[in-house]
Amino acid sequence: MPASPIRKLVPYAEAAKRRGIEVIHLNIGQPDVHTPRQALEAVQQAHIEVLAYSQSEGPLRFREKWAAYYRRMGCDIHADQIIVTTGGSEALYFTFAVLMDAGDEVIVLEPFYANYNGFAASSNARIVPVVSSIESGFALPDIADFERLISARTRAILICNPSNPTGYLYSREELEKLEDLVLRRDLFLIADEAYREFAYDGRTQHSILSFAALGDHAVVVDSLSKRYSLCGARVGCVVSRHAAFRDAMRRFVQARLSPPTLGLLAGEAALDTPQSYFDSVTAAYEGRRNALVESLNAIEGVYTPVPSGAFYCVVQLPVAADGFAQWLLEDFSLDGKTLMLAPAAGFYTEPECGRDQVRIAYVRKVEILREAVRILDAALKAYNS
Amino acid sequence: MPASPIRKLVPYAEAAKRRGIEVIHLNIGQPDVHTPRQALEAVQQAHIEVLAYSQSEGPLRFREKWAAYYRRMGCDIHADQIIVTTGGSEALYFTFAVLMDAGDEVIVLEPFYANYNGFAASSNARIVPVVSSIESGFALPDIADFERLISARTRAILICNPSNPTGYLYSREELEKLEDLVLRRDLFLIADEAYREFAYDGRTQHSILSFAALGDHAVVVDSLSKRYSLCGARVGCVVSRHAAFRDAMRRFVQARLSPPTLGLLAGEAALDTPQSYFDSVTAAYEGRRNALVESLNAIEGVYTPVPSGAFYCVVQLPVAADGFAQWLLEDFSLDGKTLMLAPAAGFYTEPECGRDQVRIAYVRKVEILREAVRILDAALKAYNS
Repeated sequence: MPASPIRKLVPYAEAAKRRGIEVIHLNIGQPDVHTPRQALEAVQQAHIEVLAYSQSEGPLRFREKWAAYYRRMGCDIHADQIIVTTGGSEALYFTFAVLMDAGDEVIVLEPFYANYNGFAASSNARIVPVVSSIESGFALPDIADFERLISARTRAILICNPSNPTGYLYSREELEKLEDLVLRRDLFLIADEAYREFAYDGRTQHSILSFAALGDHAVVVDSLSKRYSLCGARVGCVVSRHAAFRDAMRRFVQARLSPPTLGLLAGEAALDTPQSYFDSVTAAYEGRRNALVESLNAIEGVYTPVPSGAFYCVVQLPVAADGFAQWLLEDFSLDGKTLMLAPAAGFYTEPECGRDQVRIAYVRKVEILREAVRILDAALKAYNS
Repeated sequence: MPASPIRKLVPYAEAAKRRGIEVIHLNIGQPDVHTPRQALEAVQQAHIEVLAYSQSEGPLRFREKWAAYYRRMGCDIHADQIIVTTGGSEALYFTFAVLMDAGDEVIVLEPFYANYNGFAASSNARIVPVVSSIESGFALPDIADFERLISARTRAILICNPSNPTGYLYSREELEKLEDLVLRRDLFLIADEAYREFAYDGRTQHSILSFAALGDHAVVVDSLSKRYSLCGARVGCVVSRHAAFRDAMRRFVQARLSPPTLGLLAGEAALDTPQSYFDSVTAAYEGRRNALVESLNAIEGVYTPVPSGAFYCVVQLPVAADGFAQWLLEDFSLDGKTLMLAPAAGFYTEPECGRDQVRIAYVRKVEILREAVRILDAALKAYNS
């Protein structure tokens, strides 16, 4: 498993901080949004004498509440179709382990969340990328591009909707095309829907669980991390209507014994969070996105499409991103501040792709984002001269 | 990954409970010991606004505290040699993933913790068993038995010390023999030391970290679960002096982002638990063990060696364990109570081994253990007639 280009920057960021430079982290997807109060209170007020294991697949009551959440979204899901995991990461880990033998292939829309490489590596599976382009705003490529890549070893197509790193929100029509493809070619469609609630411009995220015809072919990876600002709770799940898939998944979760009991307490209470919480959170993110995208696109040579979901955007720069990101940390500051950017090359497997792109997470207040863009603007001018 | 024989019994246990039978679980290693108060208070009193990710390899302060614990044991370990994991399970998972390519082999002392099969399966590694016998009290077999099994694909020898499921505590002399072997044959020695504090009869557990000559060859898997009755916290670690091993391990923990933040809070406070806690806990377990072993060995046809560690023993029965364990749940009760036993076949890979053995966890009060043995005695008489 290779080290990511972001990780390579960490020592430079640490060195900059030691020199007294304030580093604005645009590279991290850790939201600043407060965790719903009742989630933390559920932990703090619990009467615990023995902090015991929980059920390996999650307590029934918790899964029933999570199933009710899906039913409110219009997806006919029951508690026994949900297996609770230690975050969305473990959900992906075990999904790969269950579906892939060594050498099996999964087609992934590129650019993609870099840790998918790690999950694939642990199962000795091969990621086969379909490249989506910044020019099209990272829309779904032509289905023929997928068809071309399907081999006897292809087991699944994996999407992230809305996407980390692009923020792209797939339309119902795009998802129908993928539905048709996986049914025709007898593949799994794995959808990482960790950012489901973060949809803007009045649009709705369409879970693949709402595509009834997908049936056994749909595997949803979900997480409470971003939805309720519960990243540290480590609670996610896998949802599937495929009984044999779930049986295999249960053996993996049994082998690791238990999801984190304290995180489950927080997560169960979080599932009661009222819609008003999301309304205010998404309104805040939409404001951040607008401020960021507008000011970025005002810089000459910089371009980012307007993402409709999640809290990331991929930004085209007029410079090679790897060297620029390192230079920002090593040699640049404006009023004692600099930026840490995530070079987008880490989100592509094709070595020629994304070299002049970075991913920006807009998980900070509008003022900080505006200041960050001002620093970026000045840095680009200094770097090019 | 096959379903374990214990899991197969779960529906029978549930059916018994529905019939109003009280099931005494001797199959589960969830201690009834109270979690140290300050560990839970650290969680309940923490001021948290955003439940954020922790560092992937664990916060430095936490690792420094854990390193100090090893140094108090006489092991020269520093914070950067510790990588915090989501329980000992994840530590084993990633250790297998780092060390084993598909087809690589790990020699494991049998009977062994059944979930090792799952960790090996996820890396497509092969477990090669060395059988230890109940007649010898599960002592280390002759080193020639190991030598015979070493092939070009052998990467490591894995022991659990003290052992789940046998309770066997390896002597310094036994560990020296393994040390000599792995150095001669250039293998890793992986020691699962999750039960380190549970050593009886005035004996001490010897961590392989205290064998300085092992150097890069030693990998210790550790866990706070049993030590501080923190099973639900999901906090463990891997300790290694091998820099390249740790680098590879870091990539795995980075891919899963973070250990559980709330569990880390509990775990960090637990590391301050005074020795008096362990003194009273081990005294209680020693009393339980004595009561259990004495009364078991008083039943005709039943035999268990006296284990010096952990809180398990493997018991020879005069009947086939699988069928008997199921019959106990389906057809037997005494005063409205029955037992759930763990058939030991799940702890062996050799199909002929352990068929008339069960594992008993003595994690319940002496009175309950005595009552359980009374039920076992009556059940064996009824089953045989």
